[in-house]
Amino acid sequence: MKSSQIKVSEIGEKGLIERIIEKSRTCSSCGFDNNTDLSNFATSIGDDSALTSVDMDDNSYLVTSTDMLIQSSHFPKGMTYFQMGYKSVVVNVSDLASMGAENIGFLLNIAIPKDMLLDDFDDLICGVIRACDNYNIPLIGGDTNEANEIIISGTAIGQVDKNKALMKYGFERGDLVCISDELGYAALGFELLALKEKDQNLYHEKIEKIKEIDSTIIDLALLKALKPEAKYDEGHILREHNTANNRISATDITDGLASEFYEILNSDRKYSNLNDSNSSNSYTKGIRIYEEKLPVEDEFKEIANILDLNYLDLFLHVGEDFELLFTINEELKDQLSTEMNYHVIGEITDDDTVEIVLSNGQIEKISSRGYQHLK
Amino acid sequence: MKSSQIKVSEIGEKGLIERIIEKSRTCSSCGFDNNTDLSNFATSIGDDSALTSVDMDDNSYLVTSTDMLIQSSHFPKGMTYFQMGYKSVVVNVSDLASMGAENIGFLLNIAIPKDMLLDDFDDLICGVIRACDNYNIPLIGGDTNEANEIIISGTAIGQVDKNKALMKYGFERGDLVCISDELGYAALGFELLALKEKDQNLYHEKIEKIKEIDSTIIDLALLKALKPEAKYDEGHILREHNTANNRISATDITDGLASEFYEILNSDRKYSNLNDSNSSNSYTKGIRIYEEKLPVEDEFKEIANILDLNYLDLFLHVGEDFELLFTINEELKDQLSTEMNYHVIGEITDDDTVEIVLSNGQIEKISSRGYQHLK
Repeated sequence: MKSSQIKVSEIGEKGLIERIIEKSRTCSSCGFDNNTDLSNFATSIGDDSALTSVDMDDNSYLVTSTDMLIQSSHFPKGMTYFQMGYKSVVVNVSDLASMGAENIGFLLNIAIPKDMLLDDFDDLICGVIRACDNYNIPLIGGDTNEANEIIISGTAIGQVDKNKALMKYGFERGDLVCISDELGYAALGFELLALKEKDQNLYHEKIEKIKEIDSTIIDLALLKALKPEAKYDEGHILREHNTANNRISATDITDGLASEFYEILNSDRKYSNLNDSNSSNSYTKGIRIYEEKLPVEDEFKEIANILDLNYLDLFLHVGEDFELLFTINEELKDQLSTEMNYHVIGEITDDDTVEIVLSNGQIEKISSRGYQHLK
Repeated sequence: MKSSQIKVSEIGEKGLIERIIEKSRTCSSCGFDNNTDLSNFATSIGDDSALTSVDMDDNSYLVTSTDMLIQSSHFPKGMTYFQMGYKSVVVNVSDLASMGAENIGFLLNIAIPKDMLLDDFDDLICGVIRACDNYNIPLIGGDTNEANEIIISGTAIGQVDKNKALMKYGFERGDLVCISDELGYAALGFELLALKEKDQNLYHEKIEKIKEIDSTIIDLALLKALKPEAKYDEGHILREHNTANNRISATDITDGLASEFYEILNSDRKYSNLNDSNSSNSYTKGIRIYEEKLPVEDEFKEIANILDLNYLDLFLHVGEDFELLFTINEELKDQLSTEMNYHVIGEITDDDTVEIVLSNGQIEKISSRGYQHLK
């Protein structure tokens, strides 16, 4: 039970940093006990920069990714401080995973309001540390600052074999378009949280109806919205199969599947142009997916209906599931299914368009609509 | 001349990222033309993470530093957008410089208000890119977001020889305490900017008086406050002289010289305890500096007086000059002065205190007071 009303301003920046370092070793509030070797980290604790020993050779790329989460735009109402901290690691690890990279370290840069309760700060840090532990990415450094709302800027550092990095580009007509798991649950969760915030009565009315169909979907949707996970292992499996003759491309789905389709085509077009200056006008690759192949339960569709939502909208045009979108060639299909869970939902075409073959046989163009900041 | 009233929201996140990538190659607004090899960077442009080739072996540490600058707390009124961008690189490069590290790359994570003018955004990015160019640290990746005010979280990545990294700790009694250049100018600049904001009439009155003494000091103070530079070359020179027998310790002065004195003693105490479990109660190192040795012009003292400020306060208790504080042993003194500008201001003692010998012969204890967020 929490009784403390101590504010972070009573501890101050330096005290908070000491607290983070302490918690990264062992934490009484969440029971965390770090067994990994921190001797290397210990050398530079409190110094101007973090020093990390890395085992890297000329055949590896250093892989870096940075993502900023801002309370008012990234954390839905109802998210706990622990979940905020956890998500700040996941979004960055997901970017590394989608390159097939091995994690090296995580830098946490956090700004918080002066009047934040120390207990809440502790919960947030527990979230960061637990996520770092889950993804085997040591917290190696960072900074704390003051702001009007919570801002967490994480930086994940990793490495990957130069020949095996999973780029967004590099697929051919006939390659299979795959996703690592079901999509749309986070989107459904966000809708539920927004409805709860807007109209409590309507929310409870809808929840009752949903429970008649499948109550576990509510839990799953809220879990995906509030505590997403990155597909770290899947990224590594794909990387191992990525060879010059059997190219695999991959990206994580953050802004929505449709938006990522256009992203990978855009990336592949640029790459093609870079390698063949004559190809700029002749790029005609496209993507075709099939409604029947989408991993969607009937209950999910019914629940979307209850909420007056189109399930395809949730599936295609909202992101934050952090599943992987990737392409493989036909030969790898069976082998890969013995190693990881995934779904083939379509293929790369030569039709210069992104389309879906609906269950009724109709073909519809998919728009690039997805989440984008500052628009 | 600027005529455009286009807002960043008309361009959107993806358009802005394209714009940053474009500007990092060549920029018509500031005339920048990048001649460095970007072929490696080009591979991962627009991908989930940045890929960088690094030439690193087992003898090197990966050096990482991240710093967040928030408009309302880090950017004084009167700072241009260009200067904001420039400073976001400098604060991170300064952390790498104070470890003696070689730069590898810079990640820019920026959040801006929706209604920011595109011209202003461009200026900010020009500042980032110009600073990256000056410090030879390529912009390798990043992210853009939306916030109520400008937030820039930068991450600098570098590398340093394990045996040569400049730590905060590792000095002995008798070692000389040195600073790389004059201090207090940034502090004076902040005071001038704050006064201008608070009372225009009084500001102009004071400025007139200051001009009678030395008008160049105003320019220098404002420059140090608005467009600081990092001591990158000096960090490298010190690193080269750092050997097991002749240990050099170093840190950059961000929160004030006095605060950094306590930081290095604290760091050295921890390091001593780590290496000698019996020493925890016997740590007695201290620092003594001499007012007469401080590089301060008489004009600076007079100007501080005009502003009703104590010059020693400006010198000791306000940071942001980004000069280096370092310790060397006596033998290196002459040799080093042929290679870089620096000032010996005191020595490491065995007196368990931080003190200043004033010009009148009195000895005063120096308090740890310095800038600290969330306090």
